[in-house]
Amino acid sequence: MNIIDGTVASPKGFQATGLHAGLKKNKMDLGIIYSEKPAKAAAVYTTNQVKAAPIYVTKEAMQEPTMQAVVVNSGYANACTGEIGLQHAKQMQKAAADHLGVTPDKVAVASTGVIGKIMPIELVEKGIQKIDIEDCEPYHFHEAILTTDTTTKEIAVQAKINGETITVAGCAKGSGMIHPNMATMLAFITTDAEISQELLQELLSDKTETTFNQITVDGDTSTNDMVLVLANGMAGNATIEKGTEGYDTFVAMFQLVSETLAQMIAKDGEGATKLIEVQVNGATDELAARMIAKKVVGSMLVKTAMFGEDPNWGRIICAIGYAETKIDPEKVDMWIGSVQVLKSSQPQAFDEAAIKPILEQDKIVIAVDMNLGDAKGAAWGCDLTYKYVEVNALYHT
Amino acid sequence: MNIIDGTVASPKGFQATGLHAGLKKNKMDLGIIYSEKPAKAAAVYTTNQVKAAPIYVTKEAMQEPTMQAVVVNSGYANACTGEIGLQHAKQMQKAAADHLGVTPDKVAVASTGVIGKIMPIELVEKGIQKIDIEDCEPYHFHEAILTTDTTTKEIAVQAKINGETITVAGCAKGSGMIHPNMATMLAFITTDAEISQELLQELLSDKTETTFNQITVDGDTSTNDMVLVLANGMAGNATIEKGTEGYDTFVAMFQLVSETLAQMIAKDGEGATKLIEVQVNGATDELAARMIAKKVVGSMLVKTAMFGEDPNWGRIICAIGYAETKIDPEKVDMWIGSVQVLKSSQPQAFDEAAIKPILEQDKIVIAVDMNLGDAKGAAWGCDLTYKYVEVNALYHT
Repeated sequence: MNIIDGTVASPKGFQATGLHAGLKKNKMDLGIIYSEKPAKAAAVYTTNQVKAAPIYVTKEAMQEPTMQAVVVNSGYANACTGEIGLQHAKQMQKAAADHLGVTPDKVAVASTGVIGKIMPIELVEKGIQKIDIEDCEPYHFHEAILTTDTTTKEIAVQAKINGETITVAGCAKGSGMIHPNMATMLAFITTDAEISQELLQELLSDKTETTFNQITVDGDTSTNDMVLVLANGMAGNATIEKGTEGYDTFVAMFQLVSETLAQMIAKDGEGATKLIEVQVNGATDELAARMIAKKVVGSMLVKTAMFGEDPNWGRIICAIGYAETKIDPEKVDMWIGSVQVLKSSQPQAFDEAAIKPILEQDKIVIAVDMNLGDAKGAAWGCDLTYKYVEVNALYHT
Repeated sequence: MNIIDGTVASPKGFQATGLHAGLKKNKMDLGIIYSEKPAKAAAVYTTNQVKAAPIYVTKEAMQEPTMQAVVVNSGYANACTGEIGLQHAKQMQKAAADHLGVTPDKVAVASTGVIGKIMPIELVEKGIQKIDIEDCEPYHFHEAILTTDTTTKEIAVQAKINGETITVAGCAKGSGMIHPNMATMLAFITTDAEISQELLQELLSDKTETTFNQITVDGDTSTNDMVLVLANGMAGNATIEKGTEGYDTFVAMFQLVSETLAQMIAKDGEGATKLIEVQVNGATDELAARMIAKKVVGSMLVKTAMFGEDPNWGRIICAIGYAETKIDPEKVDMWIGSVQVLKSSQPQAFDEAAIKPILEQDKIVIAVDMNLGDAKGAAWGCDLTYKYVEVNALYHT
């Protein structure tokens, strides 16, 4: 498996592009991914009970999970916009379908931006008509889906499966309202692999649990989250079947793409200066390990300590203690980077000079061993900074 | 019922004082509350699985729930300190007992401060010996329990019950690691009322659910939380029995003291400039109402919006949507102060000029009606500011 310098348009038969439709002041705000052939599609959506209009429209289209395109806007979340919002999401879907020459039920719709503002649908429709999908500029798509993100987020990997070169690629946006299950986190994954829709959905749901759902920026689960995968089969491989070597390779590719995008989102959390990875080992089961990891990475006190570059293990073990899973409070071992700070829950003398450079890095790994079993899990987040407060206090509705 | 200008020593037969024992640089750090007569005692403790040594020691003493004193230190949490920490908590208990001429099992112990540092027990013991409980300086006690708090927190109320004047008083500390169930939140409530221990414990457990457990500063549940109530019966009233007018009065007094202390803790959250109160009406049941209120008040995005004085109802309804209780996302009404911002989940046009002065206040009330039932609940928190990040990033272990 090789990481290539690619985009969501790297897998065979995919195009992607974006432009400035006028929803945001200057930046790209509208994009389309298009597959030459109808693709098997799988999706996961926000668990927030307040769902944006595009979530409803995409879910409806996905009742027949073969898709050929996704149209995305940023600037307006189209959430809490009632009947008119639902109408707009459908108009957006239809405009893209008409423009691309497919039926509306082959087009997924996603939005991100301010909640509760009515989207200027005429700008969206005009924008869609201006999109030249043949003049493929995938980075414009990667840009068009961003809100407070500071960088685009993409990855592409290639491997041989059943004799054919398969590409899996993805891009994402994150930054705020990030505590997935999902967050306003949008991620789009494309592949030219031939695989059944059922297996694709199973793989997405499974991998989402350990990747996208294990990141947190602010603990807020958004109204608009969506991860959508399109597999158009144009690599010409024999269908990937469970229990084969090819399947294992595909799972590894999918895992790498999902985990990389998830980490990129965590690292680019609003105002963040550091990616924090929490690895939990020795837990009773994987769910418990993930719950503990997510509590630690979500703790405001841990997040500020990391910003302050302070090896404050007291805040870390405190967060472990309030994870909603049974632990043995006397058995916890803990490391910050390579430095052990706790053994059997007791502080270990450590060299301040050794830990300082670890805390100065832009990625800090906190590892704990619960010493209760064999299960492990991880979570990713970021530090809490002055800039986070600035971004979110100054962002006015 | 009258609020009086009082302290934890206002109820008959109570004394309280504090001093600087040298655990903190300059400030008061050690205090004792003493009751002339043994008092019925009730307590609630942190739900964190990692518990500080004083929690274990107090729980053990409370197996026979008659207490005559509580000794408290700040500066050291005495958590994650292993066997030696447990020994220190017992030494602290014994030193206070010897000094006051009571048995150790009549003395509750509480600590707050840095986790994982071994407490200089000789300073604690010397400090206890220096305490002159007859030279009662209750404000010194109120001060001695503080950590990053900016003010002492106390309230005292009086009413006639069964012909006698009854006083209920309390003091608390809060500021950080505040997401009770409990938090490092310590609260001590004293009363001269005659009431059974069982009824006192029932009342405390019940009122804790709607007051202390409904505040959040940072979402972090501390290792050291404790609310302790002492009722010494010295008012000479006929025992307060359930179902009587006197009971109703006592409940109202207890409620006022608990709720006031809880609000004072929320308002003095680390770096806070505003108290945020969330009132949820029309919920299916009281627990659901409290869960929704607590999600809203704990949302980092809502907290930063309030700091930015932005009427960002989108973040509020988003938080309502991820509360772990069933809602109807189409039915929510919402007000910020007196200004309605949502009706049936749809944005209402409102006058920016009318809402501005509401958001500039140091207390902001967000009210929502779920339109599903008759139950209500509230929660209290504070805004998230630059100062919060400063306090917690600069506070080094």
